[in-house]
Amino acid sequence: MPLTRKGAATRDRIVAAAAALLRERGVDEVSLDDIRTATATSKSQLFHYFPEGRAQLLLAVAEHEAAAVLQDQEPQLSSLGPPESWTAWRDVVIARYEAQGTHCPLGALTRQLAPSNPEVRPIVVDLLTTWQARLSEGAGRAGAADPGRAAVIILTAVQGGVNMLLATGDSTALRVSLDAALAGLRLVGPPGGGAHVDLLTA
Amino acid sequence: MPLTRKGAATRDRIVAAAAALLRERGVDEVSLDDIRTATATSKSQLFHYFPEGRAQLLLAVAEHEAAAVLQDQEPQLSSLGPPESWTAWRDVVIARYEAQGTHCPLGALTRQLAPSNPEVRPIVVDLLTTWQARLSEGAGRAGAADPGRAAVIILTAVQGGVNMLLATGDSTALRVSLDAALAGLRLVGPPGGGAHVDLLTA
Repeated sequence: MPLTRKGAATRDRIVAAAAALLRERGVDEVSLDDIRTATATSKSQLFHYFPEGRAQLLLAVAEHEAAAVLQDQEPQLSSLGPPESWTAWRDVVIARYEAQGTHCPLGALTRQLAPSNPEVRPIVVDLLTTWQARLSEGAGRAGAADPGRAAVIILTAVQGGVNMLLATGDSTALRVSLDAALAGLRLVGPPGGGAHVDLLTA
Repeated sequence: MPLTRKGAATRDRIVAAAAALLRERGVDEVSLDDIRTATATSKSQLFHYFPEGRAQLLLAVAEHEAAAVLQDQEPQLSSLGPPESWTAWRDVVIARYEAQGTHCPLGALTRQLAPSNPEVRPIVVDLLTTWQARLSEGAGRAGAADPGRAAVIILTAVQGGVNMLLATGDSTALRVSLDAALAGLRLVGPPGGGAHVDLLTA
């Protein structure tokens, strides 16, 4: 049964509050009762929106967090094209992941849900697919010879750099790898201006 | 109290068998009793080697898996230098992670242990540090202008590509990003021979 407009707004409010609580405390430390208290929701109301219980609510939070990954990169991600747009997007990405530090809310959720919930993996795959498509569109507007390949190289640089940041707390690898990818793909100007020669070995 | 040589061998045998069992069934599905049965170990023997219980044994398995990540790349990883050595190492890395597929044993362990075991993170950081050092040594032998930077770019390409493989089951991103990094850094010859021009945009 589809939700009414008011119902959808209430559901969104519960999911957003649950997401904030999970970010603050970690997914293992939050019960349905905690979420009920934080959102001033009754048991029957929570059951109305999430009849299958905690896993269903956590899945909705995972969708919320996956959407946030892309939203946090806007409007820069959808405006990619000229060199300065890549620099602007790069700055947003680095700031987002430095602020997030060593805790990835979406990662924590998918890890907890994945073994028993086949609905989780498509959320992550959809996120990566959409992210890659946006980067590919931007690389196309930048005149890249193979925008799809460029998008894969940029997205893996971000993923690898974030992985290192999550493990070590240090964003150097993210900065180095993303800058090398953007410069190597000629999407940004060479450091200090001048010609694009041997950028990756410079 | 340090273990005798025989004791250390027994402990290693228990850890290796536990690692195999965890790889097969997943970390959530294996109890201490399962490990005891699989290794034909008595309760008192298991307690002797792992007096702090399941978490201590899982930590030892995480160390075992972290060591395996590097061992599986040898002797190629420590032989990096000339162009053909990078191609040989690349093939080993891609084969290892394609065989592993969408399940990362070390990742599963660190996720389960990390919230309550501060000893886990150093295992992963040490792995990344050693891996990066080996790549840096290889890039140095290859004559890279900045071997440390080259190592970061290659390692993030692997990490990012493996991340995408774990999420999607598809190794294309790993292949594309690793090949782009090695070619962009001029560590391997250009595809099809010839001069190194605009490799990343080709």
